[in-house]
Amino acid sequence: MEKPSLLVFDVNETLIDFESMAPIFGRIFGARAVMREWLGHLITYSMTVTLSGLYVDFFSLGQGLLQMVGAIHGVSVKPADVDKLRTGVMTMPAHPDVVEGLRRLKESGFRMVTLTNSPPNPKGKSPLEHAVLADFFERQFSIETVRAYKPAQMGYHMVAQDLNVRPSSCCMVAANVWDTIGAQSAGLSAALITRPGNALLPVYGLPQPNFVARDLQDLAAKLNATRQT
Amino acid sequence: MEKPSLLVFDVNETLIDFESMAPIFGRIFGARAVMREWLGHLITYSMTVTLSGLYVDFFSLGQGLLQMVGAIHGVSVKPADVDKLRTGVMTMPAHPDVVEGLRRLKESGFRMVTLTNSPPNPKGKSPLEHAVLADFFERQFSIETVRAYKPAQMGYHMVAQDLNVRPSSCCMVAANVWDTIGAQSAGLSAALITRPGNALLPVYGLPQPNFVARDLQDLAAKLNATRQT
Repeated sequence: MEKPSLLVFDVNETLIDFESMAPIFGRIFGARAVMREWLGHLITYSMTVTLSGLYVDFFSLGQGLLQMVGAIHGVSVKPADVDKLRTGVMTMPAHPDVVEGLRRLKESGFRMVTLTNSPPNPKGKSPLEHAVLADFFERQFSIETVRAYKPAQMGYHMVAQDLNVRPSSCCMVAANVWDTIGAQSAGLSAALITRPGNALLPVYGLPQPNFVARDLQDLAAKLNATRQT
Repeated sequence: MEKPSLLVFDVNETLIDFESMAPIFGRIFGARAVMREWLGHLITYSMTVTLSGLYVDFFSLGQGLLQMVGAIHGVSVKPADVDKLRTGVMTMPAHPDVVEGLRRLKESGFRMVTLTNSPPNPKGKSPLEHAVLADFFERQFSIETVRAYKPAQMGYHMVAQDLNVRPSSCCMVAANVWDTIGAQSAGLSAALITRPGNALLPVYGLPQPNFVARDLQDLAAKLNATRQT
């Protein structure tokens, strides 16, 4: 494996903490845990849309899925609930390890960009700006440009092409194994951040991440150890 | 919409009841509900594999995901647990409405086949044979032939091509909206069976099923009403 010089960060869950959305689901459904059910559907249906050759943006999909999960649970989702979801996903906080982890990685000389399934927000601050993380990154990429959700290869390739670097010089940093599998299939290396709810997927025939770290500070230590060898 | 003459049934969840797997998860994890978490991952990761241009079979993926879910929950999954899962998925019962629903649909003159994400079982009985449903179907198709999981279009197209019929004469019958979206994108019509845990996904830009029924007997009534008009 080539030592990475450019880190491509996933945003949702990897940098930003979706758990902050749980109270919204607690109020609508009487159970905060429904947030994870909704988020699981959001991932599955983003992949469905791309496999079907279609495109609808991540937030519109998330709003429709809130209605679907409401119908499944027999709960009527009101327009005010959808508004709260929309505002909520734009203003989630960073995980506590992220600012210090990114600072160390930047200090170590890595180029850093993001690649997210979320659309850009032309009218206001991006979730990264809200979480005061945007300044760490040279570029913020969205799969909306290629209209194909991760883990389709187009998004990963777009980043390497736009930055005029080889995919093999890039390392995808993600909290989800589906993202590391997609990135590695597209020729990048990958680091899995094992945040709660995430773990390795031991299946013969699927690529395993090149790095595994519990958070971004742990990743900084592991990547620096690699560079010094 | 063309009136369908050929029904293409999804197998897992649509005909066969995954809830029968819940006790296995109850024994391993102390919580039967972990079955749904595992099943959600199984769908998401089958899509991941296809979007990444890879292929591993559905049961191997399911076994690896059992290990992954074990790691997430801090539970050690033993080889005997994996064996129970393997046996369990081959011997799930049919939902209670299925035999009578299929009988009515066959009596109404529909050609009927299945299309599943599961691989064929060359060594023994298929899950459909175990559930005593196989005789209803003219053919049992598996996406293993095209090595691309639903909702990729290849599987749906394979069925129409192999049977030498137009996709528009086929109606996909499935309990999952991701399956009806894929089928409709491939040119089939689709019927959603709203079994518990399933509901419509109201998103502008995504196809809505042509028929919605609570079970197969309800579907038989609705399809017959259409044919008589």
